[in-house]
Amino acid sequence: MQQTYRLVIDCPDKVGLVASVSQFLADHGATIVEASHHTDQQTGRFFMRHEIGADSLKLDYPSFLSEFAPLANEYQMQWKLADSRHRQRVALLGSLESHCLVDLLHRWHTGELHCDIPCIISNHPQMQQFADWYKVPFHWIDFKGQGKDAAFEQIATLLNEYNIDLTVLARFMQILPDSLCQQLAGKAINIHHSFLPSFAGARPYQQAYDRGVKLIGATCHYVTADLDEGPIIEQSVKRISHSDTATDMVRKGKDCEVTALAHGVRYHLEDRVIIHRNKTVVFA
Amino acid sequence: MQQTYRLVIDCPDKVGLVASVSQFLADHGATIVEASHHTDQQTGRFFMRHEIGADSLKLDYPSFLSEFAPLANEYQMQWKLADSRHRQRVALLGSLESHCLVDLLHRWHTGELHCDIPCIISNHPQMQQFADWYKVPFHWIDFKGQGKDAAFEQIATLLNEYNIDLTVLARFMQILPDSLCQQLAGKAINIHHSFLPSFAGARPYQQAYDRGVKLIGATCHYVTADLDEGPIIEQSVKRISHSDTATDMVRKGKDCEVTALAHGVRYHLEDRVIIHRNKTVVFA
Amino acid sequence: MQQTYRLVIDCPDKVGLVASVSQFLADHGATIVEASHHTDQQTGRFFMRHEIGADSLKLDYPSFLSEFAPLANEYQMQWKLADSRHRQRVALLGSLESHCLVDLLHRWHTGELHCDIPCIISNHPQMQQFADWYKVPFHWIDFKGQGKDAAFEQIATLLNEYNIDLTVLARFMQILPDSLCQQLAGKAINIHHSFLPSFAGARPYQQAYDRGVKLIGATCHYVTADLDEGPIIEQSVKRISHSDTATDMVRKGKDCEVTALAHGVRYHLEDRVIIHRNKTVVFA
Amino acid sequence: MQQTYRLVIDCPDKVGLVASVSQFLADHGATIVEASHHTDQQTGRFFMRHEIGADSLKLDYPSFLSEFAPLANEYQMQWKLADSRHRQRVALLGSLESHCLVDLLHRWHTGELHCDIPCIISNHPQMQQFADWYKVPFHWIDFKGQGKDAAFEQIATLLNEYNIDLTVLARFMQILPDSLCQQLAGKAINIHHSFLPSFAGARPYQQAYDRGVKLIGATCHYVTADLDEGPIIEQSVKRISHSDTATDMVRKGKDCEVTALAHGVRYHLEDRVIIHRNKTVVFA
Repeated sequence: MQQTYRLVIDCPDKVGLVASVSQFLADHGATIVEASHHTDQQTGRFFMRHEIGADSLKLDYPSFLSEFAPLANEYQMQWKLADSRHRQRVALLGSLESHCLVDLLHRWHTGELHCDIPCIISNHPQMQQFADWYKVPFHWIDFKGQGKDAAFEQIATLLNEYNIDLTVLARFMQILPDSLCQQLAGKAINIHHSFLPSFAGARPYQQAYDRGVKLIGATCHYVTADLDEGPIIEQSVKRISHSDTATDMVRKGKDCEVTALAHGVRYHLEDRVIIHRNKTVVFA
Repeated sequence: MQQTYRLVIDCPDKVGLVASVSQFLADHGATIVEASHHTDQQTGRFFMRHEIGADSLKLDYPSFLSEFAPLANEYQMQWKLADSRHRQRVALLGSLESHCLVDLLHRWHTGELHCDIPCIISNHPQMQQFADWYKVPFHWIDFKGQGKDAAFEQIATLLNEYNIDLTVLARFMQILPDSLCQQLAGKAINIHHSFLPSFAGARPYQQAYDRGVKLIGATCHYVTADLDEGPIIEQSVKRISHSDTATDMVRKGKDCEVTALAHGVRYHLEDRVIIHRNKTVVFA
Repeated sequence: MQQTYRLVIDCPDKVGLVASVSQFLADHGATIVEASHHTDQQTGRFFMRHEIGADSLKLDYPSFLSEFAPLANEYQMQWKLADSRHRQRVALLGSLESHCLVDLLHRWHTGELHCDIPCIISNHPQMQQFADWYKVPFHWIDFKGQGKDAAFEQIATLLNEYNIDLTVLARFMQILPDSLCQQLAGKAINIHHSFLPSFAGARPYQQAYDRGVKLIGATCHYVTADLDEGPIIEQSVKRISHSDTATDMVRKGKDCEVTALAHGVRYHLEDRVIIHRNKTVVFA
Repeated sequence: MQQTYRLVIDCPDKVGLVASVSQFLADHGATIVEASHHTDQQTGRFFMRHEIGADSLKLDYPSFLSEFAPLANEYQMQWKLADSRHRQRVALLGSLESHCLVDLLHRWHTGELHCDIPCIISNHPQMQQFADWYKVPFHWIDFKGQGKDAAFEQIATLLNEYNIDLTVLARFMQILPDSLCQQLAGKAINIHHSFLPSFAGARPYQQAYDRGVKLIGATCHYVTADLDEGPIIEQSVKRISHSDTATDMVRKGKDCEVTALAHGVRYHLEDRVIIHRNKTVVFA
């Protein structure tokens, strides 16, 4: 795979902005592999993502940072430059349901997800078997034995020790404490098994069954202190009917969850997501 | 089109039920064009729809009714026998947005919807042009001039005078009074421009925009006194992204509304929907 | 609706290209409403579309053309600048099936499609009723009476006299002669009632039925001399099963056709489509 | 999971048929969990599937067979009675791509697919790792070393020795010889990575890219001697655009393949598929 740099910019919209950035890139020989722009007309905010062929660029990574900084300041940019060779460190948090965990591990194993997975953490020991096979260190956190507070402190410590960039809640059924949510802001992704905002909270399939909806879904979103209220990255739905039993709904729902979570994680890892207030710009 | 009878049954499940009904049909020579069964395992309720070739049947309509009655009583059936030649009388209620109204009229005009449309009722005069072209009597109800109560009385009177079987709220933006909802129970269909239960109430596209969902939708449901809470017949969704403006969302939403409403109305007209508590069985 | 200019560029990819164009736009005060880029990595071809707020631009239309020309030459651009106020002149060609024709007319009538429709042409007189209602001149071309060659000459003459920019074959069931295809290259859109390249040619629904596929579809494409082989703009599919009769397939297929054609025509009218060899870049 | 019997019938349509079968079931106390009927109007063929609660039935499996036989003969039925406790023996044939294989193994492991998987066979040794983890015997067949004919003889022998009921070609990239196809008729399922009949044969994604289609797909079908021409069980599609690279298409295509194959295999294992000429009735 071709090495690229991803320049991601979020700033107030202004005439001349694109020209200045494009000129900077051209001046340093950049070949543009992919370019995406978006202006939020309501807030006047501008978003831009460039994927640049690394070979073409006459600047190395640190020089790019220092040379681009004045331009970034001039336009009051929030920005980052990501090197595609740099692999983010992703922790997977699981529970009893294995479908999301196994799917992410397989996509990582086959190279579809470019990241490192230095650890898997679970409140149940059963996921150990998958971790072992993929040769990923596994940590069983005993929520019942030590209580929630201690358990989450243990998790926070692990995320810190492993130097984790992204925490993925792959059907991890515990509610994170506010302090941890804040600490992981923009760096933790959850999959909720409903088409949010419908059926937030517990037992969404039962809620969907009781309401008699004709489509069920799953929502991949960033974790915030307000449960199931974080910025949505991706959603997926499937058609159901009166003839679908609870088992059928769970089976179809799982396929939605797997799909939405895999998309959401990949978009994040490829620096395609920008959080803007409580929403996302996704340059898919 | 082949003439058929539709025998629709809703009763407690019981061994021998299907055999008895099938034997009755066979004894009278019935050729089955389409047969659908469903048992609700939670409530033990059984639902069945047969579409029978009228030519094959050695009973006329009234004889069928009288001969089937003892069997229906034995199994405590709620049931009906509909003749496909009988066209239900459908009233369309519109407002300012024409897309659902025009779509239903065209499907009716081309024979996709088998019904009569004896009148169009609207709280705005603009729909007159469509009514005239399709040669359907048009009634403008002046809500502002006479007030809501009088306006709805006028509507109730019209539905009564026209002997209406089904009332379709084709983006009719007025909330029906409870008494009318009760009177029309199971005989009035609404289209709500969101994927219910998400974004019930007013301005659903704005709500969807504000929440940052990645799919928008529409819901076709029976009207009940609880606004946007009636039994759902059909739902439809479309993918959106950050780049969709308010105009884009409305345009995509309209396509969802048209599709979901057209399906819902057709299912109802073809006796494919059975209401069970607050849900539907749809033999699509 | 906001007035915009659409600058659409198709040229060999080159470092500095985007910077030059962006600088040109910034120098003349352009606010970018929407910007889309694409590089075809296989052919090294670059495609770009800018939608520019007309108010912001310090150049009028003719000055933009003349001032941009040197830059366009330098980069060997095929390009155009379209004014959103300019309404393309669209001819609709119909036959017996009304669904696509009526759908396009309604979308035009409600302002979703920004164009003029100066004429409707059909090889059957039945479409006259729709044309009359929308107050669009209608031309019945008698294919049987005068033969195909004369009929198509008559059509070519009409397209010429009406000064047509875009010809839409809205289920027009006659095969255009090669000379007319060439004359209308890139300016005529057809809807084929299958998911091409499956089931090209006649009776696609019958072909789909015979093959037992589980999804049917429709394809909106530019007309070329090779029947059903032109560049594809949009495709749409729907799920079917063994229980779908021929009537069901036609009904579902119609919904696909309407959707795909409406999208394709809108993309074309908004200058979102660039033909590249036998494929399209669609900045949807 | 509740134990059920599945009675699957395929015979000429005849008045009284459903009544006779229903009466037989009622006479033996059968509770119907699920019932599906279909009449092919063109061929006059009738298809029926009943799922019967085993607890309710006053007949054991062999008695059912013998008591039902006279009725079956009377109506010239092709029929079978399957016990849900009986697990079919499924052989997975893989090659280098692991996504379908791993997905099926995981669904089997979590109980979604009710079957035994006594062996995995591959023309490449790499799949051994997955087989080992799931503790399934693995057979690497050396196609290069011994030639195709010998290799396929080895496979035929294995299928025979393992007493295989269903052979699943999970992206097995070798073309089966005619004799093996005939031997496995109705008992071998393949996944083709295109939306058939489009892009049959080799390199379907390249074909799709070259044609510029806007949707790609996958097709799950029974294996026949005519390559990619067998009865279709399930198809799945995803939207693509000009911006999708070859890598993107493969990634999206894989998700289609996994979905379509998992559905097709489950339908087969649950006796939901009846082959009729070159098509399928799928009671999904």
